[in-house]
Amino acid sequence: MDPACLLTHPMTHPDTTHTLAARYEQLRQQTRALAEPLSAEDCQIQSMPDCSPVKWHLAHTTWFFETFILSRFQPDRAPFHPDYRMLFNSYYNAIGARHPRPQRGMLSRPPLDDIWRYRDATDDAMRALFDRMAGVDAAFDQLVELGLNHEQQHQELILTDIKHALSLNPLRPAYAPLAQGSSSTVTPPGWIQYEGGRVRIGHEQTGFSFDNESPAHDMLLRPFHLADRLVTQGEYLAFILDGGYQRADLWLSLGWDRVCAEQWQAPLYWEEQGNDWQIYTLRGMQALDPQAPVAHVSYYEADAYARWARARLPREAEWEHAARQMRTGSGLTTANLLENGQLHPVAAVSRPAPVTDPAQMFGDTWEWTCSAYDAYPGYAPPAGAVGEYNGKFMCNQYVLRGGSCVTPASHIRATYRNFFPPEARWQFSGIRLARDA
Amino acid sequence: MDPACLLTHPMTHPDTTHTLAARYEQLRQQTRALAEPLSAEDCQIQSMPDCSPVKWHLAHTTWFFETFILSRFQPDRAPFHPDYRMLFNSYYNAIGARHPRPQRGMLSRPPLDDIWRYRDATDDAMRALFDRMAGVDAAFDQLVELGLNHEQQHQELILTDIKHALSLNPLRPAYAPLAQGSSSTVTPPGWIQYEGGRVRIGHEQTGFSFDNESPAHDMLLRPFHLADRLVTQGEYLAFILDGGYQRADLWLSLGWDRVCAEQWQAPLYWEEQGNDWQIYTLRGMQALDPQAPVAHVSYYEADAYARWARARLPREAEWEHAARQMRTGSGLTTANLLENGQLHPVAAVSRPAPVTDPAQMFGDTWEWTCSAYDAYPGYAPPAGAVGEYNGKFMCNQYVLRGGSCVTPASHIRATYRNFFPPEARWQFSGIRLARDA
Amino acid sequence: MDPACLLTHPMTHPDTTHTLAARYEQLRQQTRALAEPLSAEDCQIQSMPDCSPVKWHLAHTTWFFETFILSRFQPDRAPFHPDYRMLFNSYYNAIGARHPRPQRGMLSRPPLDDIWRYRDATDDAMRALFDRMAGVDAAFDQLVELGLNHEQQHQELILTDIKHALSLNPLRPAYAPLAQGSSSTVTPPGWIQYEGGRVRIGHEQTGFSFDNESPAHDMLLRPFHLADRLVTQGEYLAFILDGGYQRADLWLSLGWDRVCAEQWQAPLYWEEQGNDWQIYTLRGMQALDPQAPVAHVSYYEADAYARWARARLPREAEWEHAARQMRTGSGLTTANLLENGQLHPVAAVSRPAPVTDPAQMFGDTWEWTCSAYDAYPGYAPPAGAVGEYNGKFMCNQYVLRGGSCVTPASHIRATYRNFFPPEARWQFSGIRLARDA
Amino acid sequence: MDPACLLTHPMTHPDTTHTLAARYEQLRQQTRALAEPLSAEDCQIQSMPDCSPVKWHLAHTTWFFETFILSRFQPDRAPFHPDYRMLFNSYYNAIGARHPRPQRGMLSRPPLDDIWRYRDATDDAMRALFDRMAGVDAAFDQLVELGLNHEQQHQELILTDIKHALSLNPLRPAYAPLAQGSSSTVTPPGWIQYEGGRVRIGHEQTGFSFDNESPAHDMLLRPFHLADRLVTQGEYLAFILDGGYQRADLWLSLGWDRVCAEQWQAPLYWEEQGNDWQIYTLRGMQALDPQAPVAHVSYYEADAYARWARARLPREAEWEHAARQMRTGSGLTTANLLENGQLHPVAAVSRPAPVTDPAQMFGDTWEWTCSAYDAYPGYAPPAGAVGEYNGKFMCNQYVLRGGSCVTPASHIRATYRNFFPPEARWQFSGIRLARDA
Repeated sequence: MDPACLLTHPMTHPDTTHTLAARYEQLRQQTRALAEPLSAEDCQIQSMPDCSPVKWHLAHTTWFFETFILSRFQPDRAPFHPDYRMLFNSYYNAIGARHPRPQRGMLSRPPLDDIWRYRDATDDAMRALFDRMAGVDAAFDQLVELGLNHEQQHQELILTDIKHALSLNPLRPAYAPLAQGSSSTVTPPGWIQYEGGRVRIGHEQTGFSFDNESPAHDMLLRPFHLADRLVTQGEYLAFILDGGYQRADLWLSLGWDRVCAEQWQAPLYWEEQGNDWQIYTLRGMQALDPQAPVAHVSYYEADAYARWARARLPREAEWEHAARQMRTGSGLTTANLLENGQLHPVAAVSRPAPVTDPAQMFGDTWEWTCSAYDAYPGYAPPAGAVGEYNGKFMCNQYVLRGGSCVTPASHIRATYRNFFPPEARWQFSGIRLARDA
Repeated sequence: MDPACLLTHPMTHPDTTHTLAARYEQLRQQTRALAEPLSAEDCQIQSMPDCSPVKWHLAHTTWFFETFILSRFQPDRAPFHPDYRMLFNSYYNAIGARHPRPQRGMLSRPPLDDIWRYRDATDDAMRALFDRMAGVDAAFDQLVELGLNHEQQHQELILTDIKHALSLNPLRPAYAPLAQGSSSTVTPPGWIQYEGGRVRIGHEQTGFSFDNESPAHDMLLRPFHLADRLVTQGEYLAFILDGGYQRADLWLSLGWDRVCAEQWQAPLYWEEQGNDWQIYTLRGMQALDPQAPVAHVSYYEADAYARWARARLPREAEWEHAARQMRTGSGLTTANLLENGQLHPVAAVSRPAPVTDPAQMFGDTWEWTCSAYDAYPGYAPPAGAVGEYNGKFMCNQYVLRGGSCVTPASHIRATYRNFFPPEARWQFSGIRLARDA
Repeated sequence: MDPACLLTHPMTHPDTTHTLAARYEQLRQQTRALAEPLSAEDCQIQSMPDCSPVKWHLAHTTWFFETFILSRFQPDRAPFHPDYRMLFNSYYNAIGARHPRPQRGMLSRPPLDDIWRYRDATDDAMRALFDRMAGVDAAFDQLVELGLNHEQQHQELILTDIKHALSLNPLRPAYAPLAQGSSSTVTPPGWIQYEGGRVRIGHEQTGFSFDNESPAHDMLLRPFHLADRLVTQGEYLAFILDGGYQRADLWLSLGWDRVCAEQWQAPLYWEEQGNDWQIYTLRGMQALDPQAPVAHVSYYEADAYARWARARLPREAEWEHAARQMRTGSGLTTANLLENGQLHPVAAVSRPAPVTDPAQMFGDTWEWTCSAYDAYPGYAPPAGAVGEYNGKFMCNQYVLRGGSCVTPASHIRATYRNFFPPEARWQFSGIRLARDA
Repeated sequence: MDPACLLTHPMTHPDTTHTLAARYEQLRQQTRALAEPLSAEDCQIQSMPDCSPVKWHLAHTTWFFETFILSRFQPDRAPFHPDYRMLFNSYYNAIGARHPRPQRGMLSRPPLDDIWRYRDATDDAMRALFDRMAGVDAAFDQLVELGLNHEQQHQELILTDIKHALSLNPLRPAYAPLAQGSSSTVTPPGWIQYEGGRVRIGHEQTGFSFDNESPAHDMLLRPFHLADRLVTQGEYLAFILDGGYQRADLWLSLGWDRVCAEQWQAPLYWEEQGNDWQIYTLRGMQALDPQAPVAHVSYYEADAYARWARARLPREAEWEHAARQMRTGSGLTTANLLENGQLHPVAAVSRPAPVTDPAQMFGDTWEWTCSAYDAYPGYAPPAGAVGEYNGKFMCNQYVLRGGSCVTPASHIRATYRNFFPPEARWQFSGIRLARDA
């Protein structure tokens, strides 16, 4: 199978051995497993308006199936609880009222146990529907697919949000026990050359994708170079030591304002202790590994680093073009999957020259591009409430590509467009350099 | 026993049948009982910087005994956990660093279970000390007494803080099940006359009191009248219906600013539903009882109401003088104690004329006085960390007197000075009118 | 001369009859004329951090010539005043310290008279340089050209900023006396069709342009339609009356947040009086003219209006392509120039069918595009301090095209990229619709 | 004449040689003289919401006479301008709408020239009334007296507000040219002893006073000591050098919050330059004079200094009692009057022992007392709009006594109660210590 083709499709995609129902079961179980190491108190807390409590994520992903599927295909079914429609609505104005986002952490009731019951009851109802509808009604299949992809997004958020919440605790508690680190030697960064020209961008809709990946379209690219691996923590440290956070000339104007206002001195989760740097991870505090990719930088920091390094961030079309060109496979290995439980990006493996494909394209860190998040030519959001999924957020955000170490493997694809405001740092967001050829 | 004397002492005071150790046991047990109806998730949440999570209250009251007593009288004892000294320090700069107050709700670790263990271990260590030190070392006895009174303050805060937190939940969950309401007929308000002159104010230090109640001193009072009961919810509703929240001329300048900025239309916890008003209580939503005393008003609202009623708020010295003059008993009945579990102020009982003492002086609502919270003449805070208990808060706060329906009975006395900023509304704070004779 | 060619060049461009020195004289004189109707007090005030006092604009445009030209080409010249380098630096970190932007309105000293002397002295020194350097040193010519274009930008800002400042005065004072309104009948909006394909975008650098207009490059456009005139105030009023400001589904998520937070109900400067709308203009309050183009809308409002009208905003490349295609001239008439002193956009003139070119493309209102402001492929900012002119602002802003009724005519061209944050409303920013073909 | 008596009256009080009309003329002329050194631009600026532009002060003091006197005693007179009633209303809700305080600096129109015409026209109308009403109608005389005292308050504010505004200019412009400094040797501080007991406080209403100085009443004071002079800049510098701004234990809780939030390191207007301190004054930057009284400290700083010095701030009753006890005269000399044009507090003159009266009680700096600003027993604000003069501000402010170097001499008296919030620093507010005997 052509790897480019692979990558424009879900990596683990529906086939005869993975029915929709089976994937539903597996994925819902994965979500439950993510909450396993956490107490009810851990699942309660919300550390900032951008983050949600884990309990809320568990409920909201269930709400999605109940609201968009059960209430449509089984309209006579009584909702699990009449207030949940409002409590666990995230941002769908078409669904009606919703609990204010910054107040999600105040919902000590319903208790976590009720949410588990909510999940069980919803899963039971979904199972009954699967028997009747799967493969029968295309709308049903599509909405389930959307719900599964939606839940995968929240799987990642469960980890990034609880990481942020726990990091505010002076005890710096770990989500999971310390793993054995495997630091490999990193080779100096190199460049991969691309000719550009007329290239194809966007999802061809031969499998599931989000609306914002379409329509597929052609565009023109100038020749460019893409770094053959991510920027490492050691390289980023050199930027810090060179006064990167003190030199206004390296920063976007808004970025410099932010550096000054928030007194940023390093990426999120970096703590200077004497002469050393410690990094807070989901496995607790760890010494800085100079070979591992830098993560938890904002767009502003990624952009400033690139300027300091006399390079730039890639355009999202450049990144996607390179991803679809991969000749040696997708680069997704067991080393960088949520599924392997590493929970932190790891150093790239040395490769013998000549290197023809960039490494660490998938599943290490989300890679900031310099492309503002906007609508592809001809884009139109779907009708109804699910039309609020993506389109209304196309303002003052930047596209990130590639997936991180806590993105489910089957959720990663070359056309996938993640997006965050330029000041966001609590995702596993890192840096790949580009430059004009 | 002279009631005035009673009231300048703790109402349930140390005697032969209530040793310090026995009171310690009873009071610590009461605190535990207050947390009984709450889940670990309930105990986790913090609804505003002024409030603390119940878990934090449980830990901090324990911290007080460990920090100020165990570490002094048993210096070789290892602390229960080395980080707790910082985590559960409220505001004692002399003790060292502390976790920021607005972040208390982020401490999902240590879990509630650990805090129960912390309480048990501390209680065990205290018991051992009681055997050795109680009645032997006056400093020990005094610090235990302070710790007990401190914990009583937090018993009240546990209830007012969880009330505020639960009120933000759209489900409006109740802390306790609905009780049978007993509404009595309220007589029209009357005035009790006082001659004033040279009166004695402050605690004579014949039992426990806080430093801010001393020194006792004489002062001059002009003749005045004091209302013979609290302002009712029905009376306050008349103020609302008369446009009280729309007329700038009734308000202090800062009060009017606050009314406009926060769009206040009624006391905290009042909700207009159609033509009716519902009140959120610790026992859930209840219809407005016109006879019950109004609670959860700010100083600004109390002051505006008094101006509207062509009266004023009492000075704290007037209130205390009246409280020490009570001829017919303290007025503390089982109807208005935390101990009876009512958890909400109740209507005054009708009394046959002539009425010689004001009703509802103790244990109904805290009563705003027009006296700014300041130091009594000759006041000096104690040396050491406990000197930070009261003195450093003597700025931009107003004195409240009398205790509320959730104040422990033995914590109430005529000289007691509670204090809150003029905008605070989450305490059971109500209104008694006064006027010049 | 081909109009498309005309429009990629400055409209009034250097030729034999307009030497650089002559243009300098004329343009500096125009700036002075703009301040003529204003008192020293008017020139002093600053209504928000985004706006600057007129006095500051007068000084800063002079500072530009002194700092970037006089100090370079006449290095032994003493600066007019040693503190001005800091006082009137806008945002050039490479130049050194600067007075904080929100505090510009506090500079009552130097007085306006000193600023006039500063301008005169700088003009004298520039004149001496012109004799020696103009046409001799290309760097000199280029910097003068940049300074002139810079001053033209500030000519527009002088008017938009003083408009905002005067609008906050309850007397609603006029900048200029009321002019005779000339309302023409507006035809229903029509669409002009474009084929798209491979089109040329960006400035070819055959005359002056800003760095952000380069490099010129090809790109692919799908077929599209562009509205043949701007959205009128009457049309926008229909959107308001249809509940446009109350329907969340019409808005970007950030836009809706802004509507709620700022309680927007209409464009900036619209005031509802009974059943009528009055518009504050530089000539005082005027009744709403339904035929005139709507102005002073944010990107959010423009986008919401377009969604309501079942259309969208144009991409900047679509707009530029259409502008370069104009077959019937540039559309710039005396009716819509700063130079004619109208100071407010006017209704489009009816044209006989068939209409082949869009009207009101230049000099009516700045037209919001849906394109985030970013770097063109291959863009690199110039070296040195002037490199801070444009590049560092490429974040969270949107491109506007076409120039407004207060843009100097010679400052308008088809490739010109203006940019503002999506919430900005104090510029003459309006709406042209587009749609997919 | 008994000096105590003198001090409970206006220092320059109405007598046969100073008719009300003559005092009106003189005082209005003084106000004009204060604005003399300022340009229209200087008179325009407003540096913070607490301050007003000088132009606004000039208009508002005139508005007071027009609104409260002319419109009452000459009701058929057309107002000077119909909008001024709203524009120059400070805070009188009973008068109707008002321009928002933080926006006063936006009123570039009406121009300063119009305000001068407004003053002239109002003065003319007042002169006509004086002929008819002075000495005839007591209400007229009283309102004029109030208006004159009101204008004196604004004379002081003109100077403190323009000082604040000019201080924000990096050029540090002077209001007046540098005067010859006269530094005398300061003796070590001593204490004056007072017996206390039953003392008389408040104004006896034998001349003009503000409502908040009444009713006069007796109160009990314990014996106390009062410092015989103000705290000097040199003494305050010792507090700074001893880490005063770094030690939380010295501060009120709210004070410490403010120190941290605003990063206070010294009084307002102190600038550290190398090893020296420079002080911004109305006469420009001056080297710190260790003998001169410290000014421009907040209540928080005054309180912290007192704690550091093992003393306390005086109660207002203590201060007033001492002021009424003065045996050697009022202490008001030509050295410390607004009228002498010094515009900055000067060092105390050495006096031969034994010293029986405190020095610098009047006209040097306002002296923070530890008394919250409240109503005297029996206080009732006057009916009507002037009732808003004082009463509605009795919340979260502290009383200052004595008058400053920019208070008009005839405005100073022993019973005078000035008040500001505890964080205010832009007045000439200083420190006198007290302690229990």
